[in-house]
Amino acid sequence: MPRSDEFKLIERFFRPLAGEGAFGLVDDAAQLEPVAGFDQVVTSDMIASGVHFLPDDPPDTIARKVLRVNLSDLASKGADPHAYILNIALGPEVDDDWLAGFSAGLAEDQTRYGIHMLGGDTISTHAPCVIAVTAIGLVPAGRMVHRFNARPGDALYLSGQIGAATVGLDLLVDLQSPWHGLEAEARQACISRYRVPEPRVELAEVLRSHARAAMDISDGLVGDADKMTAASGCTGTIVFDDIPLASGLREQARADQFAALITGGDDFEILASIAPESEDSFVQAASAKGIEVSRIGWLAQGEGPVQVMRAGREMALGDRRAYVHRNS
Amino acid sequence: MPRSDEFKLIERFFRPLAGEGAFGLVDDAAQLEPVAGFDQVVTSDMIASGVHFLPDDPPDTIARKVLRVNLSDLASKGADPHAYILNIALGPEVDDDWLAGFSAGLAEDQTRYGIHMLGGDTISTHAPCVIAVTAIGLVPAGRMVHRFNARPGDALYLSGQIGAATVGLDLLVDLQSPWHGLEAEARQACISRYRVPEPRVELAEVLRSHARAAMDISDGLVGDADKMTAASGCTGTIVFDDIPLASGLREQARADQFAALITGGDDFEILASIAPESEDSFVQAASAKGIEVSRIGWLAQGEGPVQVMRAGREMALGDRRAYVHRNS
Repeated sequence: MPRSDEFKLIERFFRPLAGEGAFGLVDDAAQLEPVAGFDQVVTSDMIASGVHFLPDDPPDTIARKVLRVNLSDLASKGADPHAYILNIALGPEVDDDWLAGFSAGLAEDQTRYGIHMLGGDTISTHAPCVIAVTAIGLVPAGRMVHRFNARPGDALYLSGQIGAATVGLDLLVDLQSPWHGLEAEARQACISRYRVPEPRVELAEVLRSHARAAMDISDGLVGDADKMTAASGCTGTIVFDDIPLASGLREQARADQFAALITGGDDFEILASIAPESEDSFVQAASAKGIEVSRIGWLAQGEGPVQVMRAGREMALGDRRAYVHRNS
Repeated sequence: MPRSDEFKLIERFFRPLAGEGAFGLVDDAAQLEPVAGFDQVVTSDMIASGVHFLPDDPPDTIARKVLRVNLSDLASKGADPHAYILNIALGPEVDDDWLAGFSAGLAEDQTRYGIHMLGGDTISTHAPCVIAVTAIGLVPAGRMVHRFNARPGDALYLSGQIGAATVGLDLLVDLQSPWHGLEAEARQACISRYRVPEPRVELAEVLRSHARAAMDISDGLVGDADKMTAASGCTGTIVFDDIPLASGLREQARADQFAALITGGDDFEILASIAPESEDSFVQAASAKGIEVSRIGWLAQGEGPVQVMRAGREMALGDRRAYVHRNS
């Protein structure tokens, strides 16, 4: 199937996604009216074919991924989704079928998360697709949660479970991956998780009420915890056995694979620093939203990387603390 | 010169550009506090190497171009520059020297236009650079200027002069271009204009006080006028001899090149629809800002493309009414 020209393409695939302030995408710009009593939180993530998603991933999953990685950032700041701007550089492989799937994925998640498209830009290139989303969330004035306010003595909490996305990517790109030994259902869950993250939007309100600091885990738990402690001027400890790993991974993993699970990318869970007196209320408020949170460690005075303890010893992670997306 | 890793690169080249609400680019997101009495205008443009700029364009000009094309959109909506988000997919050709030039260009224009960086994302790919900027401007509440409010009987005005960017691109990519016959100074002016547009930010206030509708000219005057009339439910006439062309172009052009000058891209001047009773005040207000505006035609009842008259006849433009960026 060929590709519509840029004007028709926007009219057909993106105009139906435009919401309040977007003027049906026929103007040069959108209008955002401030909402009294709220600050806007703005975040932006860019993903590229062959780097952050695979060229043959279904287009609806690519759309949902680029939207959701931004919603994950908003949630970690205590902000509720409001609107987004889409920039997409279409590679030569993109046809109208692909665009139909892509826009259907956006439409589905717009409904799910109560967010609308404000505008953006569509260009054509000879290179693989590059997609950027800038998302705008709303937070009650002065209540944005930062990653730099963690303090020694806080407990470190993690939402959900991690490791699935790393395993999913490995399953998709490596026929020899030992993870093929997982049961079929677990394999499929990992692949789905790699392709479509589950942003913790319900946790936004809980974080702004109970967390001292928070961030989302996109480049591996350990490296991201390092970023939180560095930004907050402290250090910390994570207890490996307390880290919730996705179903089946702990049982299936060889010892030399544990490090990969806690330093791999694309988890999109929330790491939160909770003052001791807030731990109970934080856990209860998260549970009331249907989200399990786990205490995985604590923060301490000092500086330098977070130490990860396993069976009473520090795990040797070497330089592989953070995940770096590479061209596949 | 090699390229710093992503973390160091952001710290070295982009953190110095971060302004209020950006938290030094160490958080997951930025904060935008609403400004009482103002609406926010949001626009976004994406540019790709080999499509919207040339791979060997100086990096500071690439930075200024991607920022300025967004400021041009804001100006056309009557909005003053406020902040921006930068997304950049770095190709393998990018090294620290390139990034130093790129960030220096941003720094220069941040000062010039009173705008600051809020945040963004930096990724690495194997493909040529793709850069997206989302810019946020401020307009007094309810005063945003749209492209869809033009009315039959309005006069069509154009700021500055057009054609230079089209000629500049032609000079850069075609050794046989007849434009090489221009004088050296005019050639250099055209190349500079292609690389670094001059957004009409001073016109924002004038437009919101005196214009019924406005848009910026990025894809060729004729095709963009078609878009304004289509959005406004009318048609119009442009008088070729009243179109201000950049210095030397009218004299140098062969008859068959006139069409290219008024349908070529990257002019970034403002097309405005002015009610007859506002013409004098619009021209005077623009002049007070040091900007020449020219009456190039009028709008009329009806529908369909704008007609361009030359020497009493309609110019035959065929399908070449709007500029489509192509991979070079």
